Amino acid sequence: MNKGERTRQKLVDTTAELLQRQGYHATGLAQIVAESGAPRGSLYFHFPGGKDELAVMALDASSRAWRTRIDATVTAAADLGQAVEDVCKLLADDLAASHYQRGCPVAAVALEAAATSPSVRAAVEGHYAEWADAIVARVTTAGLPRDAAKQLATFVLASIEGALLLAKVQRSKQPLLTVGTMLRQMAAMAPRKRSR
Amino acid sequence: MNKGERTRQKLVDTTAELLQRQGYHATGLAQIVAESGAPRGSLYFHFPGGKDELAVMALDASSRAWRTRIDATVTAAADLGQAVEDVCKLLADDLAASHYQRGCPVAAVALEAAATSPSVRAAVEGHYAEWADAIVARVTTAGLPRDAAKQLATFVLASIEGALLLAKVQRSKQPLLTVGTMLRQMAAMAPRKRSR
Repeated sequence: MNKGERTRQKLVDTTAELLQRQGYHATGLAQIVAESGAPRGSLYFHFPGGKDELAVMALDASSRAWRTRIDATVTAAADLGQAVEDVCKLLADDLAASHYQRGCPVAAVALEAAATSPSVRAAVEGHYAEWADAIVARVTTAGLPRDAAKQLATFVLASIEGALLLAKVQRSKQPLLTVGTMLRQMAAMAPRKRSR
Repeated sequence: MNKGERTRQKLVDTTAELLQRQGYHATGLAQIVAESGAPRGSLYFHFPGGKDELAVMALDASSRAWRTRIDATVTAAADLGQAVEDVCKLLADDLAASHYQRGCPVAAVALEAAATSPSVRAAVEGHYAEWADAIVARVTTAGLPRDAAKQLATFVLASIEGALLLAKVQRSKQPLLTVGTMLRQMAAMAPRKRSR
């Protein structure tokens, strides 16, 4: 990486972290420049579209990083129920390690949607759709019919997102651990495709 | 209500709506004054603590209004599963009626917690705790042992919060309706206290 690429990377990483901790509107360009240590002029050089362009890139980067870690956890798990419970534990540990500052990298921005730009809204929608598709793929592999898989994916994604929110508010891993345990129990009871 | 009380009420209602639609930081005092139609000077007259004091009062008012509607729905339902599903339908209809702008009255502010004041954070935490307690009370009445009731309450609250978020992002009732159906099925399978 040359110097310009490093500066660009620092701007993206800092923005991702701020969006995760505090949302879109609390995050100003001055704070991004200050916390990243990047030269002020570099922001518009790398991101001529300003805060919106930078936010879309940042959501992209943090969503991808999250996805990589979650995929690894899911792949390592023995079965579907274990996979879901392990992901909840991973997210609980991450949140606690950040002193309950960093929850879902996309959620804070998602809930300010009424006051953000169409490009940021589209990015948020795209990331949730990707996560739901990844769950559908995993659940279908476990033998669920496609319609049941889609329902279960919505349910899993919703309950984990909500648990991340409650855990952040309560500054406690408990909501994520509880939801993980209950989702594992549900997965064990989910209908399977009839074997021939 | 005299003129001063009406002005105060308008300021609280407008703030509640803006916090619900777009969160804490996107909501400026100038916008509150403009959308409420209240005289500029009246804001600091009624709320000497400024935006934080007004936000706490607004979260209080909208949380109470939500609670009243949800309680009525729960009371009218035949059983626990029906109650949860009906609440999800109510929230889905409300969200759709607001063109997917108004989700949970507290969630957007909750996720900006890293950048809000201790008084606002405490208000948010208090409202979630109240909702969880209300669910525990209803679930215990349905015959669940207290530990199972607390787990189920966390799970119900988390999945409904997450579904509200996904429904807002996708501009669709579907996540709420799916979660409502699945929670009803779960409630039907929940353990009961042994009858004597």
